[in-house]
Amino acid sequence: MGNNLLKGKRGIIFGALNDMSIAWKVAERCVEEGATVTLSNTALAIRMGTTTELSEKLNAKLIPADATSVEDLEKVFAESMEALGGKVDFILHSIGMSPNVRKKRPYDDLDYGLLNQTLDISAISFHKMLQVAKKMDAINDWGSVIALSYGAAQRTMYGYNDMADAKAMLESVARSFGYIYGRSQNVRINTISQSPTVTTAGSGIKGFDSLVDFSDRMSPLGNATAAECADYCVVMFSDLTKKVTMQNLYHDGGYSSMGMSFRAMEQYIKSFEGLTDEQGNIIYG
Amino acid sequence: MGNNLLKGKRGIIFGALNDMSIAWKVAERCVEEGATVTLSNTALAIRMGTTTELSEKLNAKLIPADATSVEDLEKVFAESMEALGGKVDFILHSIGMSPNVRKKRPYDDLDYGLLNQTLDISAISFHKMLQVAKKMDAINDWGSVIALSYGAAQRTMYGYNDMADAKAMLESVARSFGYIYGRSQNVRINTISQSPTVTTAGSGIKGFDSLVDFSDRMSPLGNATAAECADYCVVMFSDLTKKVTMQNLYHDGGYSSMGMSFRAMEQYIKSFEGLTDEQGNIIYG
Amino acid sequence: MGNNLLKGKRGIIFGALNDMSIAWKVAERCVEEGATVTLSNTALAIRMGTTTELSEKLNAKLIPADATSVEDLEKVFAESMEALGGKVDFILHSIGMSPNVRKKRPYDDLDYGLLNQTLDISAISFHKMLQVAKKMDAINDWGSVIALSYGAAQRTMYGYNDMADAKAMLESVARSFGYIYGRSQNVRINTISQSPTVTTAGSGIKGFDSLVDFSDRMSPLGNATAAECADYCVVMFSDLTKKVTMQNLYHDGGYSSMGMSFRAMEQYIKSFEGLTDEQGNIIYG
Amino acid sequence: MGNNLLKGKRGIIFGALNDMSIAWKVAERCVEEGATVTLSNTALAIRMGTTTELSEKLNAKLIPADATSVEDLEKVFAESMEALGGKVDFILHSIGMSPNVRKKRPYDDLDYGLLNQTLDISAISFHKMLQVAKKMDAINDWGSVIALSYGAAQRTMYGYNDMADAKAMLESVARSFGYIYGRSQNVRINTISQSPTVTTAGSGIKGFDSLVDFSDRMSPLGNATAAECADYCVVMFSDLTKKVTMQNLYHDGGYSSMGMSFRAMEQYIKSFEGLTDEQGNIIYG
Repeated sequence: MGNNLLKGKRGIIFGALNDMSIAWKVAERCVEEGATVTLSNTALAIRMGTTTELSEKLNAKLIPADATSVEDLEKVFAESMEALGGKVDFILHSIGMSPNVRKKRPYDDLDYGLLNQTLDISAISFHKMLQVAKKMDAINDWGSVIALSYGAAQRTMYGYNDMADAKAMLESVARSFGYIYGRSQNVRINTISQSPTVTTAGSGIKGFDSLVDFSDRMSPLGNATAAECADYCVVMFSDLTKKVTMQNLYHDGGYSSMGMSFRAMEQYIKSFEGLTDEQGNIIYG
Repeated sequence: MGNNLLKGKRGIIFGALNDMSIAWKVAERCVEEGATVTLSNTALAIRMGTTTELSEKLNAKLIPADATSVEDLEKVFAESMEALGGKVDFILHSIGMSPNVRKKRPYDDLDYGLLNQTLDISAISFHKMLQVAKKMDAINDWGSVIALSYGAAQRTMYGYNDMADAKAMLESVARSFGYIYGRSQNVRINTISQSPTVTTAGSGIKGFDSLVDFSDRMSPLGNATAAECADYCVVMFSDLTKKVTMQNLYHDGGYSSMGMSFRAMEQYIKSFEGLTDEQGNIIYG
Repeated sequence: MGNNLLKGKRGIIFGALNDMSIAWKVAERCVEEGATVTLSNTALAIRMGTTTELSEKLNAKLIPADATSVEDLEKVFAESMEALGGKVDFILHSIGMSPNVRKKRPYDDLDYGLLNQTLDISAISFHKMLQVAKKMDAINDWGSVIALSYGAAQRTMYGYNDMADAKAMLESVARSFGYIYGRSQNVRINTISQSPTVTTAGSGIKGFDSLVDFSDRMSPLGNATAAECADYCVVMFSDLTKKVTMQNLYHDGGYSSMGMSFRAMEQYIKSFEGLTDEQGNIIYG
Repeated sequence: MGNNLLKGKRGIIFGALNDMSIAWKVAERCVEEGATVTLSNTALAIRMGTTTELSEKLNAKLIPADATSVEDLEKVFAESMEALGGKVDFILHSIGMSPNVRKKRPYDDLDYGLLNQTLDISAISFHKMLQVAKKMDAINDWGSVIALSYGAAQRTMYGYNDMADAKAMLESVARSFGYIYGRSQNVRINTISQSPTVTTAGSGIKGFDSLVDFSDRMSPLGNATAAECADYCVVMFSDLTKKVTMQNLYHDGGYSSMGMSFRAMEQYIKSFEGLTDEQGNIIYG
């Protein structure tokens, strides 16, 4: 069904939990395009989710690892190169979690131990992954690495909390390491800034459904789905995008370039029904 | 009442129509801060508006001119330097108008003659102003020039139409000429991207009131007023901001860095009342 | 040799002059990926260049047209749909020229008649193309349109002159029309901001060779070539990037995210040889 | 000598080491403008530097504190409010340090313990400062907070290392907390992205002198000095910029909007002398 865009390529997909996960779709699509892959997630996520199914379906080795552990990452790269028969060509980092959000700590009452965890899991893990890969010389020349990000890195979303800071740092790591790994081995590193996507991870955020609705009405093409994101990842892993690096790529149906759409405003105006006078002016207070 | 921030400085304020105009407030505040100014607007605007009052109040010469005419601009600079007794130190460009918007031509049915007018009035006039000033050597070293812009230059607002393209070009002119005029005479050139402001100009835009409401709820500090914009212009004209140039400066209560606020989302959610099931989920279709 | 990424798709390529042109490479690659295309350029360009060769090679109808003329554009779409047997799926706009640059008018001595031409050729032509297409319903749902841009739209390059303003406007048109055409027919519209590329168009710019050298040393992956740009266009025309719209996509080996590279600085430092004291400090004046 | 812009206002200045420090100049200028301030720095910095002198000169209480310690920050706010006789109106965060840079760990061989320190000192300290202030209700309504940043947050500078990631996070904290503190008490929070400045902190970075030279030649107004930065801080602390928040404000003589200047390119071209053939073409290899 695919176009052989990744024929003969090897990759590692971090962060597939279940079939709602973007990483899950990416793994499937990469294989469809001719790649062989390994999968990695934490032992806990593997127990809670259904990654094992995916592993079987794709005949892809599943390597439990904590992406905040340099040792574990070394193991992932070593075992992946062995399983795949050589250095890898692409990597997906789809990892992010805020214990502060989980524990409902608002942004002005953060627990700093938990903030360190948010950063370690969601941003520093990306640096560790790249540093380990580079030290082990685990990525082929002209390899491609993607991390998934979100628009809150640029514009504050209420409730997204310390994840916004983690995503801003994640995107910075992509630039900083993109320079280093680009000049030495032509490895390109980008982030994809995806529409709010209904996944297990996304569903933890306050008022998420309404945000998804608003975002969908704002975007001329509607929100991007996980499956569409997988297509975009395939393209970014392929040899057709060799000179794109250090970028944050919006994959959001146009949302990031919208100030206000007719559809979103039309809906917004409905909120004032019963609150307007005969002339249709909003009655405040 | 002021702080003598512009003591002894001379300026030209383009675009004051009536006391709702940002340019009107800027003129008042500049004088309050110790500057002497001249005013300019089209002959038509002077007839329709009340700029003459402002001219009398501030004892400021009013020079009718079409800012799309190089000759007229030459006259404005010549007469201003004469009236003020020397080269000018600051200029405000508060000029913008779309005949396509006026004639209700949607963006996919533009009249290209009118588009040329939109660009000429709203963007090229700024280049002409600067080119005329430079040729006449009409601005003192370390002078400061500001043009008013709007966030639609970066993110599409439905109904803003070809003004978005004009504002994008206006901001580019500020950068392009900021380089040229900066390196030769240290003149700095910036744009201020202001909250949607209820002025005579703003009120022509479709659904403007609701946009103002949304923008106000999105911005942690609320929309910026015309009076507050005047304060910001004073600061940018003063010697305290000498190394700020070629920038687009958001003056918008934080709006430009907001993805979604609690207040705006709270209001948005009200629009679904009667459209939700018992669990509070939105019922589509 | 291709991947059938554009199998069965129809497209129009504007702006191929000769085999150095990006548009030339794009046309070739699109056909290689299974598309059928028509070509268009001005009558003058067709005489001066070698587009006819390309037309024969690709068996692609060549339609002479001035992209600033609505009538000519109507002809291009009508003849393309006839030649290709249906509505088109993709369009490349690779058109730009500044008569002010040609006539060596510096940015502070622009001829405003020529500025209008710069804008008309380099930016408004894109709007005309889209408006004509939409009125004729000439693009299929989920079609993809790309215009080529350059980083001077964001950051001033000496010598790039009024083309910077034209490119800023071009990118704005992509956003503005991207919203309109997206919400009605899911057509996506993007610009690609390409490395400085040694083409016939690029070679007119002052100091261009040194800029190309600097840019190459700054970019971790080096400058992107015309052939690589063609690959990227293929990807953006394919169904794998359906939710990317209203974006300016940097295709530049990382340049746009670089502040300073070791290689560029190493070269820069050489310029001071003979100008440094024993400690290696720069001796000024 | 000032303009009474901060008359009656109270502030805290973090990070003055010696009279080259930006924070030092800011403290001086704030007092000159009518403010009373306290100073804070680490015990070590106070011993190494000359902050005590500044404290005496300005009659400003000096409060030793480690800005990574919540307890210490609580002490700074408590003692400041007592010394100044009320809540504060403005705060300067001029704190940043990378132990990885100090220990010459390249970006692809970071020590992760040291990275945590870089983040804690340079970015998280800003969050702690704001969280402590908000919990203690230590900032007056419409107060203003500034942190100093650098362009490496957006564009990679070789040698700047993990400080780039820290600055990206710092700017994100300004946005995230700017929303929270803005909506509750109208406190505005911004970062100023300053030209490379020859301070004790700046001088640790590799090739810094040449970078300063390049940056100066690129900027139409030249690099911004520490004294000019102090002026800009005064303006941002004053009541004239009340609606500017969540912004990263470039104070850099235009650098951030420059792609290439004639002066920088002229210098760059000199580096090829002796490397060009008779036609002036660069001879590679």
